Amino acid sequence: MNKVYVIGIGPGGACGMTAAARAALEEAEVICGYTVYLDLIAPLAPGKELRSTPMTRELDRCAMALELAGEGRTTALVCSGDAGVYGMASPLLELAAAYPAVEVEVIPGVTAALAGAAVLGAPLGHDFCTVSLSDLLTPWQVIEKRLRAAVAGDFVLCLYNPASHRRRDTLRRACGVLLEAGRAPGTPCGWVRNIGRGGQTSRLLTLAALQEEEVDMFTTVFVGASSTRAEGGRLITPRGYRT
Amino acid sequence: MNKVYVIGIGPGGACGMTAAARAALEEAEVICGYTVYLDLIAPLAPGKELRSTPMTRELDRCAMALELAGEGRTTALVCSGDAGVYGMASPLLELAAAYPAVEVEVIPGVTAALAGAAVLGAPLGHDFCTVSLSDLLTPWQVIEKRLRAAVAGDFVLCLYNPASHRRRDTLRRACGVLLEAGRAPGTPCGWVRNIGRGGQTSRLLTLAALQEEEVDMFTTVFVGASSTRAEGGRLITPRGYRT
Repeated sequence: MNKVYVIGIGPGGACGMTAAARAALEEAEVICGYTVYLDLIAPLAPGKELRSTPMTRELDRCAMALELAGEGRTTALVCSGDAGVYGMASPLLELAAAYPAVEVEVIPGVTAALAGAAVLGAPLGHDFCTVSLSDLLTPWQVIEKRLRAAVAGDFVLCLYNPASHRRRDTLRRACGVLLEAGRAPGTPCGWVRNIGRGGQTSRLLTLAALQEEEVDMFTTVFVGASSTRAEGGRLITPRGYRT
Repeated sequence: MNKVYVIGIGPGGACGMTAAARAALEEAEVICGYTVYLDLIAPLAPGKELRSTPMTRELDRCAMALELAGEGRTTALVCSGDAGVYGMASPLLELAAAYPAVEVEVIPGVTAALAGAAVLGAPLGHDFCTVSLSDLLTPWQVIEKRLRAAVAGDFVLCLYNPASHRRRDTLRRACGVLLEAGRAPGTPCGWVRNIGRGGQTSRLLTLAALQEEEVDMFTTVFVGASSTRAEGGRLITPRGYRT
């Protein structure tokens, strides 16, 4: 059978990976991915053929995986976190229509929203949304519309891609939109950098302080809802049992 | 050390669990949880003391875990999916303030949004939000406000708790709100039942059809954004590479 597994390997090394992800890596003959992720999983996949493309060539990576599977080689395409959340599952499935003989199976993983939340406490204890602040693929107007809607809905926010090589002021702009839309300056927020990897760091702070914070592209940011509290060094959004 | 692990065991049995979750179960002397989840993990934790409370007694379960840890016994509190998303991490951390000698570590897992999305394809390929339709802990007005905000922000929606023992019309009501707020009746949607367990089933359908659908409490529901497409039996929300 011609098969591609699209695998979310979780936030860091082996310990964040599911047993299903491990099993799919075992089964694959060839493993494709961005170099950094291949380095993470290489110790778990001795003897496998590894194929990488540069970071920005996601479509090339998908096409490569589909080509290899089309040749009859069971193939894995790995991405960090979850395969479906800002991951490779969506572009791969879009291209897969051109490879009718190839079966695609998506293996989910722990995305940065969940792994980062666990580091900070339980900020995602109630309804939340994720917004990517990268305007490479999405116009800033759409991002801004979503930030405003998240405030209108009193959602907890998890922000992906709060900075890039190109832009350092993205988070500052986003916080400005949230404040203007009415989220309180004292709202408990937090960020986690290098989740599940060496040098993991995190910080709790208010939304006003977050606006002045310097973060990089390896950081995931959390903005509380009206019910979120900072308590004992943890960010907690109650499910409501106590009310 | 007095320690409680709050562990998300993922969507089903062992294969959806991370290595870190397995390791924490190994380390624990006592494992607390709702009976159904204890049954799922019992084969992985031979010889451990298992403690359960009925489904609705979440706070009792948290207090039990903290008491046991306070007595110096390393304790695990397990929940399905992720510990932080509508899970036990938030109520446990709220109670933990009263147990200053107990250290709490949250071990994240694959929540139903990610696991269900992988079954359907890649519906969460761009910004999304999760909304629980359970009005046990949240007034329906708040749920409705969030559904409307999700439409205003053109978010993909993942709906948890679309039905309960008590209420069967929750999903119908929610779809009515989404349609009234302007989400198109033809919007591609899907649901997955018993994710990662025996008897897993799923279906793709339009929002108009979803409004008429009978689902139960073991189902997770996905409502596409304006960019979501149904293609080759899969639900795909593009990241935007092709535009």
